Amino acid sequence: MEKRIRLKISYDGTAYHGWQIQDGTVTVEGVLTDAVSEAVGKPVEVIGASRTDAGVHALGNVAVFDADTPIPADKMAMVLNKLLPDDISIVCSDEVPSDWHPRKQDCRKTYEYRIYTAPVRMPLKRLYAHYTYSDLDIGEMDRAASFFTGEHDFTAFCAAGSQATSFTRTIYACSVKKDGNEAVIRVTGSGFLYNMVRIIAGTLFEVGLGRKKADDIPGIIDSLDRRKAGPTLPACGLTLIGYEYGDRPF
Amino acid sequence: MEKRIRLKISYDGTAYHGWQIQDGTVTVEGVLTDAVSEAVGKPVEVIGASRTDAGVHALGNVAVFDADTPIPADKMAMVLNKLLPDDISIVCSDEVPSDWHPRKQDCRKTYEYRIYTAPVRMPLKRLYAHYTYSDLDIGEMDRAASFFTGEHDFTAFCAAGSQATSFTRTIYACSVKKDGNEAVIRVTGSGFLYNMVRIIAGTLFEVGLGRKKADDIPGIIDSLDRRKAGPTLPACGLTLIGYEYGDRPF
Repeated sequence: MEKRIRLKISYDGTAYHGWQIQDGTVTVEGVLTDAVSEAVGKPVEVIGASRTDAGVHALGNVAVFDADTPIPADKMAMVLNKLLPDDISIVCSDEVPSDWHPRKQDCRKTYEYRIYTAPVRMPLKRLYAHYTYSDLDIGEMDRAASFFTGEHDFTAFCAAGSQATSFTRTIYACSVKKDGNEAVIRVTGSGFLYNMVRIIAGTLFEVGLGRKKADDIPGIIDSLDRRKAGPTLPACGLTLIGYEYGDRPF
Repeated sequence: MEKRIRLKISYDGTAYHGWQIQDGTVTVEGVLTDAVSEAVGKPVEVIGASRTDAGVHALGNVAVFDADTPIPADKMAMVLNKLLPDDISIVCSDEVPSDWHPRKQDCRKTYEYRIYTAPVRMPLKRLYAHYTYSDLDIGEMDRAASFFTGEHDFTAFCAAGSQATSFTRTIYACSVKKDGNEAVIRVTGSGFLYNMVRIIAGTLFEVGLGRKKADDIPGIIDSLDRRKAGPTLPACGLTLIGYEYGDRPF
């Protein structure tokens, strides 16, 4: 009997051309699909929740697959961890109904973006945070972040090339906190447009540098103009923290 | 006029076969020597403070070199950072007397060893900490750590192959603290024998697991027997935090 198995996946995106399988590149989905197919003994298709970009990290991306396997759903994590490379691991696994789809459930999705400040770049931070030598006004960044909460049309925070049909998204929480010499931007929403978190981070970065003010944010959102928002910050600073599924928590 | 320039160096040791130049391998000293030689326009020999092993990281290793260059000593860091790869950076630079030698001064040297605990391995920690799924008794580890302080013959904590003529070293401080899901072992001493910090970490790890007791440490030190101490933990968890030179602080 086929069952649908769900995986919570953590990975270091540094070595991967993002999540989604593409010919001729090494992707997280590709490596995971190979491991799952080996574990269950035949080719399997994996359905992912978030198609993270090249270089983006995850603590809790989600995927499901269907397989007729004697391996209990909750032991699948352990089996896959023996087959996966060091930079991908399965945090946990469980069984879900056969029609449960990771992109078609109500959920809250949380990302973190890290920016570190130091007089010179720091080798031990370079893979997981964006570097600046400038001091950031973290209080002003946090005040700016609060303006993103609520339901808005985020056209100004969406990269060209998006295939979205609606640009309205709901942000449940957005804050900026200090963690040592890092500014940690944390944003939770119903979903995000293409590059939206990295553009929000770039806009908050400009607030931190004093190039924009917190009070400019509502006007930037209302403009629906990508050019009014800040730059898209590099992928390395971004980590998908995870999904909260109301119907079926991990 | 030649001057002696001192560098404080930070690096991610993951990609390097340690500090010391060896034929046919990529080393931190090798890459740094090339950058310095390019900056000053002729071949230069670099003298390092610590010959860290393959995979060991540093926030503050130290090196000096002599050169007749118009570049001011304090600007050398900036010049070198433009020539060095992302995983090596110069934190600062200054001029020291021509007979100042980084291995022949009185100093205190500090290392950190990190062990993280989680139900499954975590990709984002793998390069900078040793992983265990077991809970560690950090209080007992910290109590064990205190027995290392003082002047002792550390023969039991020295790997075979050491070229040391004396095995007596002074430890000024040794402690274990919790940082999120990591145990952070921090040890400051006059100097360390070959693999000594990784063997101290391995011994404290066994205390954390309950395989040894804190009160066993004095007997292990007194035994002068390498087999009584714990295993040598992997290089990735070790970071050289830095040097304090009494005569000439940074």
